[in-house]
Amino acid sequence: MKSESGLAALLRRRLPILEWGAQYSGQTLVGDLVAAAIVSMMLIPQSLAYALLVGLPPQLGLYASMAPLLLYAVFGTSRALAVGPVAVASLMTGAAAAQVAAAGTPEHIGAAVAIALLTGILMIAMGLLRLGFLANFLSHPVVSGFITAAAVQIAAGQIGPLLGIKTHGESLLEILESLLPQLGGVKPVTAAIGITAMLFLLWAKRGLKPLMVRFGLGDRPADIVAKAAPAMAIVVCTAAVGMMGLDARGVGILGAVPAGLPKLALPSFDAALWTKILVPSLLICIVGYVESISVALTLAAKRRQRVDPDQELIALGVADIGSAVSGGFPVTGALSRSVVNFEAGAQTPAAGAFAAIGVALATLFLTPLLFFMPKTALAAIIIVAVLSLVDVAALKHTWDYSRAEFAAMVATILVTWLDGVESGLIAGVGLSIFLHLYATSRPHVAVIGQIPGTSHFRNVERHAAVTDPEILSLRVDGSLYFPNARFIEELVNESVADNPAIRHVILECIAVNTIDLSALESLSAVNKRLADGGVSLHLAAVKGPVMDRLKQSHFLQELTGKVHLSHFDAVASIRPELATGVLQSARAPGAAPQKPLSEHS
Amino acid sequence: MKSESGLAALLRRRLPILEWGAQYSGQTLVGDLVAAAIVSMMLIPQSLAYALLVGLPPQLGLYASMAPLLLYAVFGTSRALAVGPVAVASLMTGAAAAQVAAAGTPEHIGAAVAIALLTGILMIAMGLLRLGFLANFLSHPVVSGFITAAAVQIAAGQIGPLLGIKTHGESLLEILESLLPQLGGVKPVTAAIGITAMLFLLWAKRGLKPLMVRFGLGDRPADIVAKAAPAMAIVVCTAAVGMMGLDARGVGILGAVPAGLPKLALPSFDAALWTKILVPSLLICIVGYVESISVALTLAAKRRQRVDPDQELIALGVADIGSAVSGGFPVTGALSRSVVNFEAGAQTPAAGAFAAIGVALATLFLTPLLFFMPKTALAAIIIVAVLSLVDVAALKHTWDYSRAEFAAMVATILVTWLDGVESGLIAGVGLSIFLHLYATSRPHVAVIGQIPGTSHFRNVERHAAVTDPEILSLRVDGSLYFPNARFIEELVNESVADNPAIRHVILECIAVNTIDLSALESLSAVNKRLADGGVSLHLAAVKGPVMDRLKQSHFLQELTGKVHLSHFDAVASIRPELATGVLQSARAPGAAPQKPLSEHS
Repeated sequence: MKSESGLAALLRRRLPILEWGAQYSGQTLVGDLVAAAIVSMMLIPQSLAYALLVGLPPQLGLYASMAPLLLYAVFGTSRALAVGPVAVASLMTGAAAAQVAAAGTPEHIGAAVAIALLTGILMIAMGLLRLGFLANFLSHPVVSGFITAAAVQIAAGQIGPLLGIKTHGESLLEILESLLPQLGGVKPVTAAIGITAMLFLLWAKRGLKPLMVRFGLGDRPADIVAKAAPAMAIVVCTAAVGMMGLDARGVGILGAVPAGLPKLALPSFDAALWTKILVPSLLICIVGYVESISVALTLAAKRRQRVDPDQELIALGVADIGSAVSGGFPVTGALSRSVVNFEAGAQTPAAGAFAAIGVALATLFLTPLLFFMPKTALAAIIIVAVLSLVDVAALKHTWDYSRAEFAAMVATILVTWLDGVESGLIAGVGLSIFLHLYATSRPHVAVIGQIPGTSHFRNVERHAAVTDPEILSLRVDGSLYFPNARFIEELVNESVADNPAIRHVILECIAVNTIDLSALESLSAVNKRLADGGVSLHLAAVKGPVMDRLKQSHFLQELTGKVHLSHFDAVASIRPELATGVLQSARAPGAAPQKPLSEHS
Repeated sequence: MKSESGLAALLRRRLPILEWGAQYSGQTLVGDLVAAAIVSMMLIPQSLAYALLVGLPPQLGLYASMAPLLLYAVFGTSRALAVGPVAVASLMTGAAAAQVAAAGTPEHIGAAVAIALLTGILMIAMGLLRLGFLANFLSHPVVSGFITAAAVQIAAGQIGPLLGIKTHGESLLEILESLLPQLGGVKPVTAAIGITAMLFLLWAKRGLKPLMVRFGLGDRPADIVAKAAPAMAIVVCTAAVGMMGLDARGVGILGAVPAGLPKLALPSFDAALWTKILVPSLLICIVGYVESISVALTLAAKRRQRVDPDQELIALGVADIGSAVSGGFPVTGALSRSVVNFEAGAQTPAAGAFAAIGVALATLFLTPLLFFMPKTALAAIIIVAVLSLVDVAALKHTWDYSRAEFAAMVATILVTWLDGVESGLIAGVGLSIFLHLYATSRPHVAVIGQIPGTSHFRNVERHAAVTDPEILSLRVDGSLYFPNARFIEELVNESVADNPAIRHVILECIAVNTIDLSALESLSAVNKRLADGGVSLHLAAVKGPVMDRLKQSHFLQELTGKVHLSHFDAVASIRPELATGVLQSARAPGAAPQKPLSEHS
């Protein structure tokens, strides 16, 4: 790679298809085709269902499942990621579009398409500017809590369509408020179809494959049949509704779905609209990226392949723009379909392109068959799909590991349920950052003393360490920066005020990874105040990068004490008589010198 | 103290007057009285001027300079802090009150009084809940930049009154926009008085004391005369205006200031008003506290006295409530007057109480003399007072020390000037937090190798260290938490993908002060991915508190490698043959054992 020209390297990086395409073989093709067939059987009903979840005409789900997959195949670095509409991003898109206009209006459709475009632009910008780290501000408990909350909310929102009643709401609270008074109006035939489909799908998740195996199918064909359960359920339900004329008995059906490929068009650039959708698009961009990159990295690692996080942002962004230009809504890497794609033997991103061709063929030739497809069966598919996203065990793990992170997780869930997806995410991120700053605002500080006969200094509360009444030795276990600057200042002031005998304060800085200007001002203030009281301040084991920074300031000139290579050196320079005995035992002939210990540069 | 009953200790803590009051002597009284006399000479003209700065009737400045000082004397822990109206808090109060109602209306006065009450309540709550650390989120560059920006803005706002023209605006931009078109309307007599007063005060700051000494005054009396310069300027200007009838020539005067002490009354509790003033009050509370505690700590350290930060919040809060109840506006510890108070010999907070009595006497008997006081002279006092807050050198220091912190500082200044004080502060705090998270999102990670013949491992880029082709040793110089969790994950993945020979990865954790759940998930993912590729993951030198946390999770059971006490132990357990030679030299008889090195618990 290093000998390549810059342009060739750039092309290779930005167009991963050049690399895997050059090695494409017949065997790869077989793997990709099988995977594509299975994924498209999952994708077609899911894409219709997610379009309804956003509040859009069903064909938009199909549109979002063609161009994005083809484009990801060109730009994507994951060999197995299945791109397309997903549940959580669809929920977020629906919530954001509903703030612009009521579902069913052309403005609502326009908003969903514009969100796809803006999400794509933001992703590409983040990828090119190497801002992928922004996604890291979603901590694991916040993402996990958010996905659980969103999944429960999506499932709750599908109870209405499942039972044949109309519900609405942007939060779980609103959905339940609109659902409960209507429970008397449940349509029995609709509910019967939906609940039957749901129970079948729930059973099929675990029971269908073993049954097929018992019927004599091989392990792999049995697996494929099991994965096709949602498609089978849809076919059976649609046939039943069509043949028995159940639509006349109140079963909501998809109706006429326009056939034909989407027409390409640029979405409108309306400044007022874009202002309204900026924050939701940014959140969809980040949540979509986080979901996608996690799956991509996990699958890549299993075959020791490589995924380029910045290029992934670009690839997903191009896919989203492709979705918008072909009239679709935001897409991202789908968790369940990617795993199926991987396990079905997808070798390259071409599998996604073949799946797109499958969807295109369905859009061209199968739409008449979709006419009698009951919406309740699609609701059943969504409910069963999202329930696998609910992760109750994560709540317990988080509680066990950290109460503070548990608080952030629960806040994310509750605010999502009470006030909607955007507020929930923002509350979670805000609380995580606050709790982190709070935790670092009071770092662990230990009074340390010398372990007799050695050059080591340890926490006097945990070890039999010896201290000198005139020397206060403190080890700070954390970087010194603005949230804790004054804490350290007050701690030293109080410790010295409590012990009038103290003449020297030594700060052990082995775990101090940075000192910012606020902390420097505090150290400077500590130094001056100690000097006023006749006490000198020393630093020990300052790291290279921190030392480089300190040399840019006047602090080292003002410092009443010195900067020592190690705590032992500091004490030894203050109390040479204490050190002599230790030196003889600690620096025995052949022993490693102590000096380099502090040069953690 | 430890043998005291809980109640006695609480009383002693919450009512510091009990402690210093019991030791009060005649000598202390003399010191306090002299300081009080000097401070009240500064305070009377400043309090009138700051009331005008807020946009309030002048007597409210006097009201804010009585009850708060008396209350602080009871509750405060600083021996030298001079409480009362200050420039920056007055600017912030004026900006917030102007958003409620136009200056001069009863609603505007009511808002200023309500802000004092709410600021006081917030301070007491922060003190009781030990939330003083919230003030730490104002980093030093942000506070410094904000005070400089506010001072320039205050000075610019006083150019209008100084020249006898009317200006308005909540930001420097608005002030200059309203000032420039009116420069043709400058009133010559007003401007002459104001500019003369301003030049005199600027000169007096440095030139008056030496002149007095040359006239034969002792050092201390000369100092007192110099501090009285603003009072002298005011007396001379007022006399000149009164005797020469200059008010008839367009010089704005204070006019009738009502005599008598303020009437006590509870401010209104209007929910709509309180909602509007909540954020400004919180910002005034934090900025006021930060200014105040810095001065208090600095002065206390000079005499090795103690200041209790939480009790200071309570004391300032009570002072603010006292100001509100007596019809005044927010107060806090004043930088310049506190230094004067300290240098003039104040021994106890009683000096503040005596200053309050001085102001009360002036309010009772001297208000008729204030009638002809020209507003332009008060503007001159404000301009000269705030110019000492402008700290251009801090910009340079910050630039030298850290470009990121300089960016936060400049953003604070520019946003304050362009959009006002609240936006400026919020932008500064937000940017500081973001830049910190950004910096920690890519911690310094070094590939380390063994220094031949020793048990030490150092950065291979800086030292002649030896590595094993099958072992990747990484030292992470930072805590592992959500902003950098994925960074570490990707770094390890890429390093291993680049080197197919690697069979072991060892993470050196000596500088890792915390591992949060996101980082744990990343480590767990790294562990699984490495296992998929036949590579094992080890940790070395994990700190006690971090280890305690890890034991709460399943990570240690899943870990393919082990947790080792030191990096040397880790390598030695993987490659016993490598270690043998080193052990013999590093663990020479009498040398300190290596083990405790990693127990940084």
